[in-house]
Amino acid sequence: MIFLFTDFSLSGPYVGQMKAVLARRAPGAGVIDLLHDAPAFNPRASAHLLAACVSQSAPGDVFLCVVDPGVGMVRRPVVLEADGRWFVGPDNGLLDVVAGRARSAQWWEITWRPSELSASFHGRDLFAPVAAGLASSTTPADWGRPIDGPTDAQGDDWAALVYVDGFGNAMTGLRAAGVAERATLQVAGRRLRYRRTFGEAAPGEVFWTANSLGLVELAANGASAAATLGLTIGDPVVIADG
Amino acid sequence: MIFLFTDFSLSGPYVGQMKAVLARRAPGAGVIDLLHDAPAFNPRASAHLLAACVSQSAPGDVFLCVVDPGVGMVRRPVVLEADGRWFVGPDNGLLDVVAGRARSAQWWEITWRPSELSASFHGRDLFAPVAAGLASSTTPADWGRPIDGPTDAQGDDWAALVYVDGFGNAMTGLRAAGVAERATLQVAGRRLRYRRTFGEAAPGEVFWTANSLGLVELAANGASAAATLGLTIGDPVVIADG
Amino acid sequence: MIFLFTDFSLSGPYVGQMKAVLARRAPGAGVIDLLHDAPAFNPRASAHLLAACVSQSAPGDVFLCVVDPGVGMVRRPVVLEADGRWFVGPDNGLLDVVAGRARSAQWWEITWRPSELSASFHGRDLFAPVAAGLASSTTPADWGRPIDGPTDAQGDDWAALVYVDGFGNAMTGLRAAGVAERATLQVAGRRLRYRRTFGEAAPGEVFWTANSLGLVELAANGASAAATLGLTIGDPVVIADG
Repeated sequence: MIFLFTDFSLSGPYVGQMKAVLARRAPGAGVIDLLHDAPAFNPRASAHLLAACVSQSAPGDVFLCVVDPGVGMVRRPVVLEADGRWFVGPDNGLLDVVAGRARSAQWWEITWRPSELSASFHGRDLFAPVAAGLASSTTPADWGRPIDGPTDAQGDDWAALVYVDGFGNAMTGLRAAGVAERATLQVAGRRLRYRRTFGEAAPGEVFWTANSLGLVELAANGASAAATLGLTIGDPVVIADG
Repeated sequence: MIFLFTDFSLSGPYVGQMKAVLARRAPGAGVIDLLHDAPAFNPRASAHLLAACVSQSAPGDVFLCVVDPGVGMVRRPVVLEADGRWFVGPDNGLLDVVAGRARSAQWWEITWRPSELSASFHGRDLFAPVAAGLASSTTPADWGRPIDGPTDAQGDDWAALVYVDGFGNAMTGLRAAGVAERATLQVAGRRLRYRRTFGEAAPGEVFWTANSLGLVELAANGASAAATLGLTIGDPVVIADG
Repeated sequence: MIFLFTDFSLSGPYVGQMKAVLARRAPGAGVIDLLHDAPAFNPRASAHLLAACVSQSAPGDVFLCVVDPGVGMVRRPVVLEADGRWFVGPDNGLLDVVAGRARSAQWWEITWRPSELSASFHGRDLFAPVAAGLASSTTPADWGRPIDGPTDAQGDDWAALVYVDGFGNAMTGLRAAGVAERATLQVAGRRLRYRRTFGEAAPGEVFWTANSLGLVELAANGASAAATLGLTIGDPVVIADG
């Protein structure tokens, strides 16, 4: 299975063109749109979201990941193998949290180049062919050479907001398993208490909970937590009384 | 074929995670995004829209339906078999219009629980596995027990707005086959006449028509009916002179 | 492979219903959402975008194309075969740029009609069955009769904006291969210079570049070109100093 994880949005012909390459080169592989509204131009926040999504995958799955701080930035294209999953994307921090948390992680630099490489769409021209190859019959050695990987890759949590969904729920880079339920969280000058479910909160109350990806999430019962508190991706979160 | 009918929107990793479960458990089944902007938190309006969509399906098709009045509300997970189609979702009214209109309808309560059940994402953890199972080789008896179904399930039309699409067309819960073309509709203090096609209406005119789902729909020629009349889901519609 | 190219947006049950027809009638064919936010009600602008997308396709591919100037307009449904690709859609200019640029182009009028043809959704009822048929085993002769095609179909570039993507990049109907890099473009009272990549532009600078579809595109480094210059689809572009 090939998971797509990008900040392309669903507007424009971008996702469709990547899928056409995948269908052409790996016709038997299922392709899943995992996320196309990853934090735009924000590899660091995206990295924490991506790492949380890995729990829903199985060995052999391929993640095609494209979030760049800008268009056409210069960075190495890489392949990461982490606990049997493949990750194809830019070496800009996006894959580092996955790597830092994996029991086993190996990196390759993609040295293969297509005959036609556009200046702005490496997702279609470079990353999609490699992802399709890994989903079918090739190995990273067919596309590049082993490298040591980012020296600063680590899997620590990040006490900050990494994603706001369409309902206004704000995910953090904190794994819920590491935060005690008795803890209160300080965000945007407010103290938030833990609720196991939305139904346990009073109407309109902003609270924190463990979301379905295993992350600490700020939510509100019947309202948008992000709008209520004026939250933005990157806002810091402080664990208090934990 | 598995149809997805939710109010999740396409933002976030929610639809993708459900599809990953379906692809894993029912690899041969086609999955179709039928609607992900169902009236949010509004099972009653969604129920009329869902019932109208059934005409496009075939026996054996599975509908995975998730629209809840709130997140994590307590309600029974159920399976409905209606005229050979399977419907998997919450027992909160969402499936009642389908059941009320079917020639044959049978209900089961889903008593199976996955080893890991998140508090907020039953669509992924509970409903998707059951839908995948019904699309492949299992029967409802493998997942639960027969029940009588909602006692108040009925298939009557609802004279109210149930959906506004991206063009500003407003669908009602009225089936067009039951409304005479000579009828005028009163909505938001305005009287609207029937037009068979958009082209029959004057530019900017708001009219009613029979839409491609067989529902009475309010539309405007070259404009947004919803914006022109200030329409909201749930607004009542009165049939006059019919 | 069947590519979908429409202005339906992803809201509503429209794309899903078309896909259900395709899956039912051409179960083995892959279906790719190429673009669902084509310039709304604008076949002329859409035609230039569609023609640019053809380079990503292969002989035998089918394009299901629906962009109409209004809903339920009267125009012939047609099939175009251009350099081995199939195009199914309305005869309203949408397919003309593709035809005008093809080495070989043949047209058929679709005379087949389904038993149930809605007034407003020919994409689902008429075009999707034909597209599915061409993707599997039928020929245009099974659906209609050869015609001469639009007499004014030509493949010339159009010096105007044809699409604005979610990032605010504005594509033109000019093929980049025909514009010298030393040229400046005049748009909205501004003169724009060529940059090969976003990284070559100063922060916030609006420039023109050759995009990944081979079109001249107006973009800004770290900003929205469309918002910065107040651009709208159809705005003229003048090549100066070229």
